[in-house]
Amino acid sequence: MTVTDLAPALTQILDGRWGEVRRQLRAHEDAARFAPPPEPLSMADHRAWTKKQLMALAKEGFAPDGLARGMGGTGDYGASVTAFEMLGHGDLSLLVKAGVQFGLFGGAIANLGTQRHHTAYLPGMVDGTLLGCFAMTETGHGSNVQHLETTATHDPTTDELVIDSPTPGSQKNYIGNAARDGRMAAVFAQLVTADGEAHGVHCVLVPIRDEGGRPMPGVTIGDCGAKGGLTGVDNGTLEFDSVRVPRWNLLNRYGDIEPDGAYSSPIDNASRRFFTMLGTLVRGRVSVAGGAGAATRSALTLATRYALHRRQFAAPGGTEELTLMSYRAHQRKLLPAIAKSYALMLAQNDLVAMMHEIAGHEGAAPEEGQRELEARAAGIKAIATRHATDTIQMCREACGGAGYMAANRLTILKEDTDVFTTFEGDNTVLLQLVAKGLLTEFQETFEDNSMLAMIAFASRFTASSILEKTPAAGLIAKLKSRAPSDDTDEAELNRGRQLSLFLDREKHLLEGVALRLGKAAKEEPDAAFRIFNNAQDHMLAAAEAHIDRVLLEAMVQAVEALEEGPAKDLFDSVTDLFALSTVERHRGWYLEHGRLTPTGSKAVIRSVGVLCKDLAPQARTLVDAFAIPDAWLGAPGLLEPLPAGRG
Amino acid sequence: MTVTDLAPALTQILDGRWGEVRRQLRAHEDAARFAPPPEPLSMADHRAWTKKQLMALAKEGFAPDGLARGMGGTGDYGASVTAFEMLGHGDLSLLVKAGVQFGLFGGAIANLGTQRHHTAYLPGMVDGTLLGCFAMTETGHGSNVQHLETTATHDPTTDELVIDSPTPGSQKNYIGNAARDGRMAAVFAQLVTADGEAHGVHCVLVPIRDEGGRPMPGVTIGDCGAKGGLTGVDNGTLEFDSVRVPRWNLLNRYGDIEPDGAYSSPIDNASRRFFTMLGTLVRGRVSVAGGAGAATRSALTLATRYALHRRQFAAPGGTEELTLMSYRAHQRKLLPAIAKSYALMLAQNDLVAMMHEIAGHEGAAPEEGQRELEARAAGIKAIATRHATDTIQMCREACGGAGYMAANRLTILKEDTDVFTTFEGDNTVLLQLVAKGLLTEFQETFEDNSMLAMIAFASRFTASSILEKTPAAGLIAKLKSRAPSDDTDEAELNRGRQLSLFLDREKHLLEGVALRLGKAAKEEPDAAFRIFNNAQDHMLAAAEAHIDRVLLEAMVQAVEALEEGPAKDLFDSVTDLFALSTVERHRGWYLEHGRLTPTGSKAVIRSVGVLCKDLAPQARTLVDAFAIPDAWLGAPGLLEPLPAGRG
Repeated sequence: MTVTDLAPALTQILDGRWGEVRRQLRAHEDAARFAPPPEPLSMADHRAWTKKQLMALAKEGFAPDGLARGMGGTGDYGASVTAFEMLGHGDLSLLVKAGVQFGLFGGAIANLGTQRHHTAYLPGMVDGTLLGCFAMTETGHGSNVQHLETTATHDPTTDELVIDSPTPGSQKNYIGNAARDGRMAAVFAQLVTADGEAHGVHCVLVPIRDEGGRPMPGVTIGDCGAKGGLTGVDNGTLEFDSVRVPRWNLLNRYGDIEPDGAYSSPIDNASRRFFTMLGTLVRGRVSVAGGAGAATRSALTLATRYALHRRQFAAPGGTEELTLMSYRAHQRKLLPAIAKSYALMLAQNDLVAMMHEIAGHEGAAPEEGQRELEARAAGIKAIATRHATDTIQMCREACGGAGYMAANRLTILKEDTDVFTTFEGDNTVLLQLVAKGLLTEFQETFEDNSMLAMIAFASRFTASSILEKTPAAGLIAKLKSRAPSDDTDEAELNRGRQLSLFLDREKHLLEGVALRLGKAAKEEPDAAFRIFNNAQDHMLAAAEAHIDRVLLEAMVQAVEALEEGPAKDLFDSVTDLFALSTVERHRGWYLEHGRLTPTGSKAVIRSVGVLCKDLAPQARTLVDAFAIPDAWLGAPGLLEPLPAGRG
Repeated sequence: MTVTDLAPALTQILDGRWGEVRRQLRAHEDAARFAPPPEPLSMADHRAWTKKQLMALAKEGFAPDGLARGMGGTGDYGASVTAFEMLGHGDLSLLVKAGVQFGLFGGAIANLGTQRHHTAYLPGMVDGTLLGCFAMTETGHGSNVQHLETTATHDPTTDELVIDSPTPGSQKNYIGNAARDGRMAAVFAQLVTADGEAHGVHCVLVPIRDEGGRPMPGVTIGDCGAKGGLTGVDNGTLEFDSVRVPRWNLLNRYGDIEPDGAYSSPIDNASRRFFTMLGTLVRGRVSVAGGAGAATRSALTLATRYALHRRQFAAPGGTEELTLMSYRAHQRKLLPAIAKSYALMLAQNDLVAMMHEIAGHEGAAPEEGQRELEARAAGIKAIATRHATDTIQMCREACGGAGYMAANRLTILKEDTDVFTTFEGDNTVLLQLVAKGLLTEFQETFEDNSMLAMIAFASRFTASSILEKTPAAGLIAKLKSRAPSDDTDEAELNRGRQLSLFLDREKHLLEGVALRLGKAAKEEPDAAFRIFNNAQDHMLAAAEAHIDRVLLEAMVQAVEALEEGPAKDLFDSVTDLFALSTVERHRGWYLEHGRLTPTGSKAVIRSVGVLCKDLAPQARTLVDAFAIPDAWLGAPGLLEPLPAGRG
């Protein structure tokens, strides 16, 4: 890999707190060991390959960083999630299968179970001798987990739990590791005690295959077959017909059944209990966002390197054809996407640190911090996976016919990451969660009907308290104070002005939603759904504006921490490009709300063009800063020009 | 298929002039005969399947409508392209393979060849006994066809043409039918006479395999292997090492070599000759646009029907969960896309009629009409394929996990149509072509350097002449005259106001580009590329604005032709939604240029929301109007709700 002079300095910034984890992985003597199969395999072969790769990961000690010290781990959660992110440069099937095994299955045992489960199952989870599933989603219920239909009914005569799939919709669906490899499933089900009382969704460990790989009695296993990607992951369906497991198998940290059949929980409110259980699984979303980011950076590196050697059409009077990167339209496709990837990588690093601190907190984590973490994870996941799908698609197109060849990886990156926008939380639902968190200031709103609660809360909302809580509040305030007061020349390039534009958009959108919900709630107390629905777009826009600000602030902090010099200057331009391409995309809003004059708006467009032009000669440096070894990238047809001479 | 009352009336409008072709295909007793394979096949099996399907198509008499009467056809070009469009509801691999065989290979022989080639090869092309390739694209040259590197050199001693691939970049690449089935290739090459003079790109028929399927001497055939879709199409590479074919094999309609070795052509200017030859192949772009439209309508039908039965989350106070279609965010995803598909289908029908008339014109087609057709085809192709990729992706996401299952078709539709944005002309290049056509008023600008010519022309541009040439000029003018003069209440719903907004954007953007190019050209005559490059985005925006207007006018004409009644009312609302969602997307531009006030812009957003809400209950009717038989759609998991009752 040729690295230009400034790239290592940029890499240093992007690598962040767990940079050492990244550097070690890059430097491994067999760099390509977790790369995709050298050519597309049949589904059966790709599944076998992925299983083998998973076992190799287990052997390399992939899991322990994700477990607390008392559970046989190191408690280095940040390192764990960073290593997972790096898998996103390899075969995404392996990333997802590892996520199911170590993250979801392992995470359910670790976070929802107690000592007995940890002792019995975590060693096998870690070394891969016990492969497991995370059986949450049902055919009829994806986003609305609280109302899934599988039941786990306590039978006091045998002290067992009886697992049932009572309806076609209650079939567990899309479950990773189910179709081929899983021996045990963490099954989410409505827990019912012998008195007939339902206690909400809980998680129960259910063996689904015996040692010989045959389905256990009463367990019907289906195969989802071919998917839009992730060919190496054996997704399947699970149905339960009076499947009996010992009561002991209930993951009982947040809800338990006593030997006498009575239900008990440290959390009285059923809804709050449910969200607390779900909250412990936040690491899955953080991880998906990280993996999406890595895959996106791979795609941008491939498309940028192609654009720097691929030539098409000569300029008037010239003889040699121009590189694709010479064209403004091409610059405008690639460079703003690179800038956003920078912003996302930094914001992801912050998110990982936040997660690390809260997961490692002695005793119970502070409620508010946990809620903020959940909202931040939901928002970054939604924006990072949207960016992944849009950007990898753009990269594919930017490479023309070469981009459509599977050997050049872009189509496979696209297909494999495609489901990221809708799994581990559908992005639309997640952005609503973000808006809800902001409007309710992350206070608990675990009443049975959270839509009404949100509407009630929103009517008391003021944006100021939230918006000043940013960790870099002082720095941001200082920069903002230096913003030019109006549309002076090149005002759009002033960092304080950029920050104000972002903050203003978020604040106004949030206050606007609050006003709409609050006002309507007063007038029409029974029309909650209609009120919510009319404001839904507005809510989603507010959530996006919030994450945009989080991204910009992450970049601004990084820039300000750099010493003066060419690396800082370059990073500064990338920050300008992220800021202004975002303002450009939302310029309709800014104009409607008097935040930009028509002249100012046109100046933003012009500045984006100029930044693209000025950054194009540095494009190789910018993607080299992602520091992805060529052996991971594959696709030699995109990376290097054709040899000269006779064919 | 349940069809609601109004659907047939809408179908009637959308089906257009060649509706009978559509109806016959839908009514075929084996509706699913050109459907995709029931489950994903290996590449080898899918290729074999597609070949078999291609032969079945040939047997059904697919080709003759695309050929002139004198060539053994019927000359019903419109019927031919409409039937091709309908294949877009089936297996896209078949569509592309049929396009290669009957459209590109057959089209090259028919349009670039003369009687001798027609007699010798068209019968085999039609009945599938002679499978062929269209060998234009090279590894090093996709968009810039004029500079491809393969050579065809006349050897007067044997009166043969010697075909060579002189450089690695001159390898023919991504060639359909090459890897497995093709026996002959229409090879585009630089024609060189024995005196060493080059005469530009011409097309030569080159046998590539013998009867036994072995490569011919000197021909090296490679296999592109797995792609991002179109698994059933055998794309490959071709390299030629002194491959000799009789001079007779030169497709000599526009350029010939006499027995004495002298070159002759009815068109003196080499560049003009090249563009004339390329122009005869316009049907390929028209066909791709049609196929993309059909695949998009399939996806919209699947996602809409899913959204109408899939339920998630109950409203406050309710018990039954709401359908996805109840949510504003979901309505806003699906309904504007449906409206745009309506507009595109109507504009496509107009384009097909335009192509039909010009192709059937006695004698040479009028130059200007041909240029307009080429520009229109380029523009509709670019916008239709962009819409396909964006919309099918959105539909996949709108169906969550179910949308990711290959059996539910959306991922396969996405993968198969993905390359449409970059083949048969890269969309960015095509939109530039549109802008260029508009700026030069479709006059010939076949100087050797068309960028300079365009800049020169643009300086003399006035928008008025073009913009009044629309076929419905009278109607449009009448409606525009009724537009309210300013931001009166609900002005955005006035049809004349909508038309003015579209026309105004196109006119202003075009005039702006012309001004920039013209002014800069005067000041800096040597900086043509920089001038062009700085204006590239502006040009692309102008081209898009032009096509947007074409789409709206196609819809307006259709609405106005309807009798008063509920079908007209519904169609009218769909037209409003197309118009206003387009204005909404470009509202930044309208605000910057004083065409919308902030209040007017917010009113547009509000109206789009209201239209979505009002049209949501009619969503089933709107997609039923596409009249796609369920047997073609497949994906029963999306079309119908799960059965009730116990699993």
